[in-house]
Amino acid sequence: MPEQVPKRLRGRPKQTDNDISMQQTIIYTASTLFKEFGYEMVTLQQIGKKCGVSKPTIYYHFAGKADLFVAAMTTMLQNVRKITAHMLDEAEHLRDGLIRLAEARLANPHGEIEMMMREAEPFLEEEQIHAIRESEHQIHDVLASHFKKAMDEKIFREEDPLFLAEAFSTLMLMGNRAHDQQKYESHHVMAEKIVRVFLKGVTTT
Amino acid sequence: MPEQVPKRLRGRPKQTDNDISMQQTIIYTASTLFKEFGYEMVTLQQIGKKCGVSKPTIYYHFAGKADLFVAAMTTMLQNVRKITAHMLDEAEHLRDGLIRLAEARLANPHGEIEMMMREAEPFLEEEQIHAIRESEHQIHDVLASHFKKAMDEKIFREEDPLFLAEAFSTLMLMGNRAHDQQKYESHHVMAEKIVRVFLKGVTTT
Repeated sequence: MPEQVPKRLRGRPKQTDNDISMQQTIIYTASTLFKEFGYEMVTLQQIGKKCGVSKPTIYYHFAGKADLFVAAMTTMLQNVRKITAHMLDEAEHLRDGLIRLAEARLANPHGEIEMMMREAEPFLEEEQIHAIRESEHQIHDVLASHFKKAMDEKIFREEDPLFLAEAFSTLMLMGNRAHDQQKYESHHVMAEKIVRVFLKGVTTT
Repeated sequence: MPEQVPKRLRGRPKQTDNDISMQQTIIYTASTLFKEFGYEMVTLQQIGKKCGVSKPTIYYHFAGKADLFVAAMTTMLQNVRKITAHMLDEAEHLRDGLIRLAEARLANPHGEIEMMMREAEPFLEEEQIHAIRESEHQIHDVLASHFKKAMDEKIFREEDPLFLAEAFSTLMLMGNRAHDQQKYESHHVMAEKIVRVFLKGVTTT
């Protein structure tokens, strides 16, 4: 969001800890509202009201609704990236990490993000869309680097690691089908089943 | 759409071939417009104008916009079901059928349908949503029956066939990522890669 930078330099005081925490509160509130009602329906007034700040305060931190939306989306996606990296780094075996990850993602469907993006895209600048897509791409990069390692260790067959990262991420979208999900005992059971398909496929040989 | 039935019986002449083809034209035009602009943005007037019929003519065939939307969605989904059945029935090996199917679905992303549904849902009756979901479910049933057969023949391992059908369908959503897709040579190459992950998984053993 390069537009913001000159705005802040124009004689404004440096960001204090308070500013940062206020900014984070606004981002968090905006994320929740955008998720629930979509880009178009949410107003800055509504966001301000929900976190108890005035519209000018929001404008102090963000150039406008599109700008705040980009901040909300990239923050969410960066959190997913951090969780992804953490779970895969901590796991003793890649399989365990993938199951934990799948479980977390099934509980918190990522498809919502794609849905929000589609709706908001007509209102965003090319550059803003790119910033969000870049944050999303970084999640795939984390997965791909672990998959590459598994290929080097001959655990995975040779394949484009990024393609596999996208295939795995896509499988996580099964979590969006709330009406189907009730059929499976729990996110954990479903996560295990999905990871099994991904790792072993469905054939017997 | 049970509401329609009494409406037609009320002294209206029986549907002629002409009526049926007009109805199909309206459904087809509506599908195209709903796909492009989403439920809310499209008006019956716009649909009528595009296929050269008056609004009363649309009302002769459909109770209203929601009713026409349901007809458009179920028609699209029934076509996907027919194509799915045809491709899997015709293929000598299940793998070939799945590749052809994946290729067709990648070219015509199904995610659009999910997107349209989400947007329209607040305007639909419970019963109308159910009718659309039922058409979607029938696609999974076709896949599941082929997967069940493969299990009986010990080609697939034992697993809930409907779960596998949903996993396969979800993988097809990779076709929605137009911005990613350009990286892969063609839908055919991508279809082969996806089917390989589904059948064999990604591990070497």
